[in-house]
Amino acid sequence: MLLKSFISTFLLTTLILITPAFAKVFNAEEFSLKNGLRVIVIPNNRAPVVTSMIWYKVGAADEPQGLSGMAHYFEHLMFKGTKKLKPGEFSRTVKKLGGNDNAFTGQDFTAYFQTIHVDYLDTVLSMEADRMMNLSVPEEHFKSEKKVVLEERRQRTENDPKGLLGEQLRSALFVNHPYGTPVIGWMDEIEEYEWDDVKTFYDKWYAPNNAVIVISGDVTVKSVRPIVEKHFKKLKPKENISRLRPNVPKAIGNTEMVLEHASIHQPSFQETYIAPSFNQNKDDALALQVLEQILSGGPTTRLYKTLVVEKKNATSVGISFSGTALDYGTITLYGTPKKGLEPEALIKDVHQEIANLRENGVTDKELADAKQQLIDSAVFARDSLSGPAMTIGYGITTGSSLDDIENWPEMIKAITKENVQSVAQKYLDPDAPWLRPAVTGYLYPKKAEAPKEVKEEKE
Amino acid sequence: MLLKSFISTFLLTTLILITPAFAKVFNAEEFSLKNGLRVIVIPNNRAPVVTSMIWYKVGAADEPQGLSGMAHYFEHLMFKGTKKLKPGEFSRTVKKLGGNDNAFTGQDFTAYFQTIHVDYLDTVLSMEADRMMNLSVPEEHFKSEKKVVLEERRQRTENDPKGLLGEQLRSALFVNHPYGTPVIGWMDEIEEYEWDDVKTFYDKWYAPNNAVIVISGDVTVKSVRPIVEKHFKKLKPKENISRLRPNVPKAIGNTEMVLEHASIHQPSFQETYIAPSFNQNKDDALALQVLEQILSGGPTTRLYKTLVVEKKNATSVGISFSGTALDYGTITLYGTPKKGLEPEALIKDVHQEIANLRENGVTDKELADAKQQLIDSAVFARDSLSGPAMTIGYGITTGSSLDDIENWPEMIKAITKENVQSVAQKYLDPDAPWLRPAVTGYLYPKKAEAPKEVKEEKE
Repeated sequence: MLLKSFISTFLLTTLILITPAFAKVFNAEEFSLKNGLRVIVIPNNRAPVVTSMIWYKVGAADEPQGLSGMAHYFEHLMFKGTKKLKPGEFSRTVKKLGGNDNAFTGQDFTAYFQTIHVDYLDTVLSMEADRMMNLSVPEEHFKSEKKVVLEERRQRTENDPKGLLGEQLRSALFVNHPYGTPVIGWMDEIEEYEWDDVKTFYDKWYAPNNAVIVISGDVTVKSVRPIVEKHFKKLKPKENISRLRPNVPKAIGNTEMVLEHASIHQPSFQETYIAPSFNQNKDDALALQVLEQILSGGPTTRLYKTLVVEKKNATSVGISFSGTALDYGTITLYGTPKKGLEPEALIKDVHQEIANLRENGVTDKELADAKQQLIDSAVFARDSLSGPAMTIGYGITTGSSLDDIENWPEMIKAITKENVQSVAQKYLDPDAPWLRPAVTGYLYPKKAEAPKEVKEEKE
Repeated sequence: MLLKSFISTFLLTTLILITPAFAKVFNAEEFSLKNGLRVIVIPNNRAPVVTSMIWYKVGAADEPQGLSGMAHYFEHLMFKGTKKLKPGEFSRTVKKLGGNDNAFTGQDFTAYFQTIHVDYLDTVLSMEADRMMNLSVPEEHFKSEKKVVLEERRQRTENDPKGLLGEQLRSALFVNHPYGTPVIGWMDEIEEYEWDDVKTFYDKWYAPNNAVIVISGDVTVKSVRPIVEKHFKKLKPKENISRLRPNVPKAIGNTEMVLEHASIHQPSFQETYIAPSFNQNKDDALALQVLEQILSGGPTTRLYKTLVVEKKNATSVGISFSGTALDYGTITLYGTPKKGLEPEALIKDVHQEIANLRENGVTDKELADAKQQLIDSAVFARDSLSGPAMTIGYGITTGSSLDDIENWPEMIKAITKENVQSVAQKYLDPDAPWLRPAVTGYLYPKKAEAPKEVKEEKE
């Protein structure tokens, strides 16, 4: 599930950046079993179809030291057989019934989902309950899946200088914190997984009280509850499930990383700051979403309008706030200068735009437009079957309450000009960063080798 | 023991850089107890005095995630009482008997030592055996010692921009590896230690089979053995002591860190590469020691002579290789340019000197001089009482055999010009680093604030 899963993850991130939650548009209902399993239902009866997702509150950031990538690798193994099902049988069954299934892993969660005719919800939940506690992977699959993941990493990261630099930037930003470790894991650690590691991981994290089922589609709590109870009621909860995360230490020196590579054709930069996540500071994270929209929400918003349209010194430029995380969020400024201009010059322009905002704030119109765009995006997202389940699962596993998610548009409405200016001052001041200075990465085309000057040796 | 212990650690590092081991000058003898305790004796009967050290094979790099600084903090607690001794009584006893004692912690070891009249060796070993297994620290001392360590960190690191930048440089270099975490620990993690953490740490690592006693002075194996047996024989070994260390992933982008601070008066740089330790590649580490000596072993060696004396564009410049580690070593280039010259210009000069060496190798005379200086330093070091015990303990706890340490001068003698040129090519090529590109740090005086240009807001 790696290739697809990573694609899903990227899509998800993009989606969430635009529509982090929805203003009571979901009207989600929920119930819990005594064993701690939480079930959230989003009724949508346009077609007799459901998206059924199960989210586990364990992700790459919960891996033990030295076993990076284990959460994602384990996601793969979940398709490799149980005491009842043969390897691959889970997905073959879903496919035979006309559905599709997949999975994805993030820093804070691992999620499995199926989209299928509502009549077969019983079948997929039965299989999910089975693999939650009865996984049984033949040794040859344990080994071959390692090769699959290694190959994936080779293709997606090792051979991609941008990917490698991206990993380095995150490592430099998230010192002493697992967010600095890539979700897919480090090459040599993937190679070293032992079956015992996998078993320990499964035994520790996979349990009804560490999972949330989110079902979106032609269902109600009334129709779902008996099916869930039938399959999951018998599963025992586990004790001592707790997610201990370290803090990122403060730092004072600015970090820059430069990569020249033959595969790069245009110089570009990205500059990332640590910012609060929704879970760390809801109010500020909401204001940062509005700020992001004002600066970079389309061709008429500040950065693009000023630097691409008017000044014409960039071919692309923007800011992205990523706040849906159990621990820290990030703010990233990025841009590609016009031909002949150095990225450093464009960064200065971007900083000046932001200094302007810090100093003078935003206009009433900018605020109103940004808020409306964000709220509209929530309404659009509601239209899909899987979007709402994605948003709710993502939010719940990163510390949001269902109320927070449902009331997001209301909370966005409440953001003021002062809130926006205040978070720009708090989190986007390069001279006084919140936690540690930005980590800035530059990509350049490989320069032609200059002849090396070598001095004559002296005796 | 913090202030003193860190001073000890620094002295130790300096000493070891110069004299990493000694050519059968020690004539150390050894024996082991059945419980796994290893005892090394270095007879030296010039005075009726001994330095007795106990080295535990546990250091900062063995701490669990989230408990950085625990090894060092634990070193402090070892002076805070046992079932028999009151807090502080260990050191008071040593002092009353005319001796002195201290301790220090590194990434790979924790060591405790006393220098005392040989008649009291029995007393100090009795107390060492006691605190190896019977530590009992009153709660108020557990708490107050935390404050001591926090204050120490505040004084030595938090208030020292160079210290903070140094920590950042190591974090950036040692991605995914505990060598990137400072030995003293991160501020907020020190604050969070619980008694249970300490107990688990002690129970896991402190045992006769994880310790090496090194006694230097007016003793022989014959005189030492009955004393050691009397106190340590009864102690039970522990199972499952293993040091699992992750690898540093490869990387391709260059990293720079810049710190401007009012306390800095002269700009300077340091550029660090990962290099093999003795434990990883003995032959290459030996050749790197000779290389270090050739480039930077005094006022007549290459870097100083060329850049300070002849070109006069630096006030200081050098290279230091640090290879005594269980995992990775480092090579650091450093320098302070003359007034008016940017550090970047000096780095270029240094790189050119090294390119010259990579291309043309070294001369017979340089090689012979460097080797002789290294071997002489070993002979000098033998003269002290604690030096040999330090060197042997440091070597043994970082993977060297006693033979390696004893034969170090012989091994240095065997290094050829080709070996030196080869390691310069392998580990000191900025364009093709061994494992990952150098991390370069710049310190600058704080520039005067430029007036901020802020554009008029457009509506």
